[in-house]
Amino acid sequence: MNARIDDVETSPLRIAVAGASGYAGGEILRLLLGHPGVASGRLVIGSLTAGGNAGSALGEFHPHLLPLADRFLTETTIDELSGHDVVFLGLPHGKSGEIAQQLPESVVIIDCGADFRLSDASAWEKYYKSAHAGTWPYGLPELPGHREKLVGATRIAVPGCYPTVSSLALAPAVAAGIVEPRVNVVAVSGASGAGRAPKADLLGAEIMGSVRAYAVAGAHRHTPEIAQNLSALSPEPVTVSFTPVLAPMPRGILATCTAVTTATQEQATEVYEKAYAAEPFVHVLGAGRLPQTGAVIGSNAVQMSVSVDEDAGLLVVVAAVDNLTKGTAGAAIQSMNLALGIPETDGLSTVGVAP
Amino acid sequence: MNARIDDVETSPLRIAVAGASGYAGGEILRLLLGHPGVASGRLVIGSLTAGGNAGSALGEFHPHLLPLADRFLTETTIDELSGHDVVFLGLPHGKSGEIAQQLPESVVIIDCGADFRLSDASAWEKYYKSAHAGTWPYGLPELPGHREKLVGATRIAVPGCYPTVSSLALAPAVAAGIVEPRVNVVAVSGASGAGRAPKADLLGAEIMGSVRAYAVAGAHRHTPEIAQNLSALSPEPVTVSFTPVLAPMPRGILATCTAVTTATQEQATEVYEKAYAAEPFVHVLGAGRLPQTGAVIGSNAVQMSVSVDEDAGLLVVVAAVDNLTKGTAGAAIQSMNLALGIPETDGLSTVGVAP
Amino acid sequence: MNARIDDVETSPLRIAVAGASGYAGGEILRLLLGHPGVASGRLVIGSLTAGGNAGSALGEFHPHLLPLADRFLTETTIDELSGHDVVFLGLPHGKSGEIAQQLPESVVIIDCGADFRLSDASAWEKYYKSAHAGTWPYGLPELPGHREKLVGATRIAVPGCYPTVSSLALAPAVAAGIVEPRVNVVAVSGASGAGRAPKADLLGAEIMGSVRAYAVAGAHRHTPEIAQNLSALSPEPVTVSFTPVLAPMPRGILATCTAVTTATQEQATEVYEKAYAAEPFVHVLGAGRLPQTGAVIGSNAVQMSVSVDEDAGLLVVVAAVDNLTKGTAGAAIQSMNLALGIPETDGLSTVGVAP
Amino acid sequence: MNARIDDVETSPLRIAVAGASGYAGGEILRLLLGHPGVASGRLVIGSLTAGGNAGSALGEFHPHLLPLADRFLTETTIDELSGHDVVFLGLPHGKSGEIAQQLPESVVIIDCGADFRLSDASAWEKYYKSAHAGTWPYGLPELPGHREKLVGATRIAVPGCYPTVSSLALAPAVAAGIVEPRVNVVAVSGASGAGRAPKADLLGAEIMGSVRAYAVAGAHRHTPEIAQNLSALSPEPVTVSFTPVLAPMPRGILATCTAVTTATQEQATEVYEKAYAAEPFVHVLGAGRLPQTGAVIGSNAVQMSVSVDEDAGLLVVVAAVDNLTKGTAGAAIQSMNLALGIPETDGLSTVGVAP
Repeated sequence: MNARIDDVETSPLRIAVAGASGYAGGEILRLLLGHPGVASGRLVIGSLTAGGNAGSALGEFHPHLLPLADRFLTETTIDELSGHDVVFLGLPHGKSGEIAQQLPESVVIIDCGADFRLSDASAWEKYYKSAHAGTWPYGLPELPGHREKLVGATRIAVPGCYPTVSSLALAPAVAAGIVEPRVNVVAVSGASGAGRAPKADLLGAEIMGSVRAYAVAGAHRHTPEIAQNLSALSPEPVTVSFTPVLAPMPRGILATCTAVTTATQEQATEVYEKAYAAEPFVHVLGAGRLPQTGAVIGSNAVQMSVSVDEDAGLLVVVAAVDNLTKGTAGAAIQSMNLALGIPETDGLSTVGVAP
Repeated sequence: MNARIDDVETSPLRIAVAGASGYAGGEILRLLLGHPGVASGRLVIGSLTAGGNAGSALGEFHPHLLPLADRFLTETTIDELSGHDVVFLGLPHGKSGEIAQQLPESVVIIDCGADFRLSDASAWEKYYKSAHAGTWPYGLPELPGHREKLVGATRIAVPGCYPTVSSLALAPAVAAGIVEPRVNVVAVSGASGAGRAPKADLLGAEIMGSVRAYAVAGAHRHTPEIAQNLSALSPEPVTVSFTPVLAPMPRGILATCTAVTTATQEQATEVYEKAYAAEPFVHVLGAGRLPQTGAVIGSNAVQMSVSVDEDAGLLVVVAAVDNLTKGTAGAAIQSMNLALGIPETDGLSTVGVAP
Repeated sequence: MNARIDDVETSPLRIAVAGASGYAGGEILRLLLGHPGVASGRLVIGSLTAGGNAGSALGEFHPHLLPLADRFLTETTIDELSGHDVVFLGLPHGKSGEIAQQLPESVVIIDCGADFRLSDASAWEKYYKSAHAGTWPYGLPELPGHREKLVGATRIAVPGCYPTVSSLALAPAVAAGIVEPRVNVVAVSGASGAGRAPKADLLGAEIMGSVRAYAVAGAHRHTPEIAQNLSALSPEPVTVSFTPVLAPMPRGILATCTAVTTATQEQATEVYEKAYAAEPFVHVLGAGRLPQTGAVIGSNAVQMSVSVDEDAGLLVVVAAVDNLTKGTAGAAIQSMNLALGIPETDGLSTVGVAP
Repeated sequence: MNARIDDVETSPLRIAVAGASGYAGGEILRLLLGHPGVASGRLVIGSLTAGGNAGSALGEFHPHLLPLADRFLTETTIDELSGHDVVFLGLPHGKSGEIAQQLPESVVIIDCGADFRLSDASAWEKYYKSAHAGTWPYGLPELPGHREKLVGATRIAVPGCYPTVSSLALAPAVAAGIVEPRVNVVAVSGASGAGRAPKADLLGAEIMGSVRAYAVAGAHRHTPEIAQNLSALSPEPVTVSFTPVLAPMPRGILATCTAVTTATQEQATEVYEKAYAAEPFVHVLGAGRLPQTGAVIGSNAVQMSVSVDEDAGLLVVVAAVDNLTKGTAGAAIQSMNLALGIPETDGLSTVGVAP
């Protein structure tokens, strides 16, 4: 049992962010700076740690986080992370397990990495080429069966960005049994999804003016995560074809998801509207509207359209998400809220920054 | 005297936005949706009006404003705007005067257009080719002499985006007398600064992958506004050379401002740090840091660097601002706060959305 | 029979471009300026016509075509187009038929519009809501059965940009019978594909930083054109699911094409390498390489990768093309070359401009 | 004396490119692939060398150079470069001198690096912190006094990209004595100007959606090069204020250049039109036209506008160039043509790729 927000009358909860110089870390801090818990002092931003960037001011990496620009990054060590009630991990894959083992069980650890997402050890080993670390509650409360496991949790695996949008786009249809258990996802992502480590093929000059596919034909590590999420809702395993595409924009994912259906447009619409009627962050667009990533930048919203292509016999769900917000850091904050007993939407918005 | 926020115990203040389908209108609404006055119910978003777009849902133009997406746009008429305590105008130049005359004096009118910015009727006529409508308090509280005129005001002219950043970048030097009264501004702007009316040379295919100058050699209408702001701080008129450049990004302005100086780096730094020490939204970067528009997107902050080029004998101030936020809608909200007696920073942030 | 290039000893062939201020017209002129026939004087650029832009210099619309910048645009009339041996049409749909009827049969008319692409009148009427004008030889010589019809032709329909890349990506698999006759295409396009007519949702501020789907679930007019091309190669009709996505770049299309297969990777690779071994403009990338639009900008090349996703049982072909070059104007020039008896690759390159 | 093109009856001239995996190297190869000398076989593309990228196929770095995609990169050694008649160097600063010393005097070496640009050893040492290697003929034939030194030269220093556009924009005014000898240049550049070595602040996610200044107040190494070029045309040294700005586009520089003048618009226009009347690559735009980088992408043209701001007493010249073409590789090819006695414009175009 973690230190819940109701217990903080005497002392605030302290939050650490490991990997604070990266994109996930920066976005967590951006959201915390607007979180009412931080504004009221019940939540406090403590250690900000990094690997090679330790020793520098946060402002060198995140000049947009003006209130924290002069805070210094320290080394990501157990010592630095100790003494916090909540620890966000924005680390390379394979680093989280070790840290989690050395922090008390009562500390809420929210891992933005992949280490604890998959339940199938063989899938993990096939895609990540290392030993499976375990499985934690999965920070996608809108997916049936997950919200209740996040309440009061002290170990949380934040979903991958592609699996977030793809799973939410297809879950209602799969759960309702209106599609065959073979789905096709082509998802176009902005460049921040590839992280901040410098690589020649991610340079601005390479990215701008070009789109390219990568890790096609099932090679992307998010493929088994999408399959896991959808198969859990289906009587039989769901086969996933997943093609990620890199587009010239900083943020955002637009996923085009198709599956064979015999449902009518009316039936499909009803399934989706019902599935998400009570969800504050998932919005099914009305007839004639189609999602765009530009409408969700900086927001925790997922916007999606549901169409039936009768000639092709396919359900076509298009969904947009900000890969850094709902796709990573927003889900992390949403999970923290659930873990601590804070209102789930605190510090999160459905309002994007556009144009 | 307007209806101040302290008087709203019994009934909330109602806010109308005219020109709600445009970029300025959309950004005002985005900021209002995050304003604590709206969250608490003391401020209420009332009529949203438009010209040709009236009759459509707001979500067709601003799908990022999800909580208001189903609100309908009505025609911009006096009837529609009546009954509000605050009216924001995001209209083409020349439309504001007529509306202002027909609304009661007690209504706080905040005009994002140019009509009431210039005090010199001949400058107005030369640049806008129409009769001068008058001069209202100028919504740039950080410029010496203006904040006090905004407190309790019922008519406010929001500054132009280029004048905001250029004036703030040069005002301390001009006021301190450390530069000659001839300044040079080359300002690179994102495409939203040109508004939302469709024009072939603003199409995405034209804008992306290209930068171009326009309205060079004093032809841009913001030239006399910059000169007015700086000349008011100087014993002699300040001559302004202004070159606007359009860059392939949605938002943001980066202004490179130069003027002849004999000051040392230390003297210049001191002048600027002193001038803005108490300003919540203007931030002078430390030595070695340079501003980027990416750090102020969606925020009300102005970030600037102050350098002396000793070889060239020039002061070089580079300043970044979001043209839609601090450059337009943020200044409008900041002005509203001052007019209504709300804390000046309410609903405004120094935290940007990046990357 | 048209005036072939071999007959021009005494007088050169004159070329007119109708719709010269648009993107298709501009790209045709760009390619002509680099065509050896123009360099040698055997081809001459004659009338450049336009609709509303008539009367202006070409340089106002295409400042990149410096050698023609001072040429004036005249009205698109039969008089203006008469007296030319080749007429390129870059006009809105529905305008080409009328012009074609009034020009002599011997004139080579190459239509970049859709009017004469579809052979099925009912498909035309369903998608274009007007009477079917007829069917012309189809300017995609790499598609089996088409090159021979283009040799010496005097009426040519240039394919749509999406059908070009989608058809070439799927034709070998369909023709070889290694996929089921249901295909899925998700194609990401740059903004020039939408043309140059000003629309608010195509403004730079809207396009940049955002991707969006449009015309989903079979609504796009290129859907029946793709189906026509593939069905012609198959014993049974091919069903097409097509989703176009608009991305923030000026040019380029990346199509992700999938179909159910039982072929192995080796079999699929062999089918494609054999199909395109002799084609100068279609390049099947080696193992481990994936296409990007940035590699084909300004070139007439199609680059594609062929993968088999064994877990999903799908063939995944990703293909990149420049929508304005091979997707429109390059195909038009290639068709002209075939029609006139000029070497097919003259004036066309497989070298792109990157980064 | 080098092996001139006239001597190649018996054997073609062999060309090597060192640094072929970088942007300058790639652009040199792109231009060579379109050069009539290569097409005719009188010029042959020989060794392509690299540093860390040696051993890989060129197509991994330049997939747009399809005809060379399968060529392998070898190590940059004297052995590899020997046996060529022309050697282009696209290497980090400080590497060229050593190579030049070891190759025969008769080999035409064209250095895209900075090593041999500056004539003033103290300026070199101040800006580059190393010993001055010497001064070679400067590959900017449009600058008075330089073309004649390039004819038949065997050692050529290609100008920096910013100095190319800034010098050409200001040279006529300085040479004609119509401006005071203090100039201000604010130049906005695309990201390829920063090269291809991976750095976190050049990642696509950082670059897109943001502009930023860097190396302000005389800190940029191109400052003394601009001063050298202009001072050579002036009776007294010209002081240069130079501010480089990084913009979200792959290519292109737009320089806004100002200087105090008493000339009228007519006088200034006449000076520029006369200066460049005979130059094939420098184009002074007519009244009312302003340059854009989008019009010169991939071309060797410089487009500029000349304006007098009478109120400010300033000459305002805005000039656009492709930093990789005329700003680097185009100048290199143009210099090669002059060195070898090939027509100066061979393989170079004034036609850009747009949009």
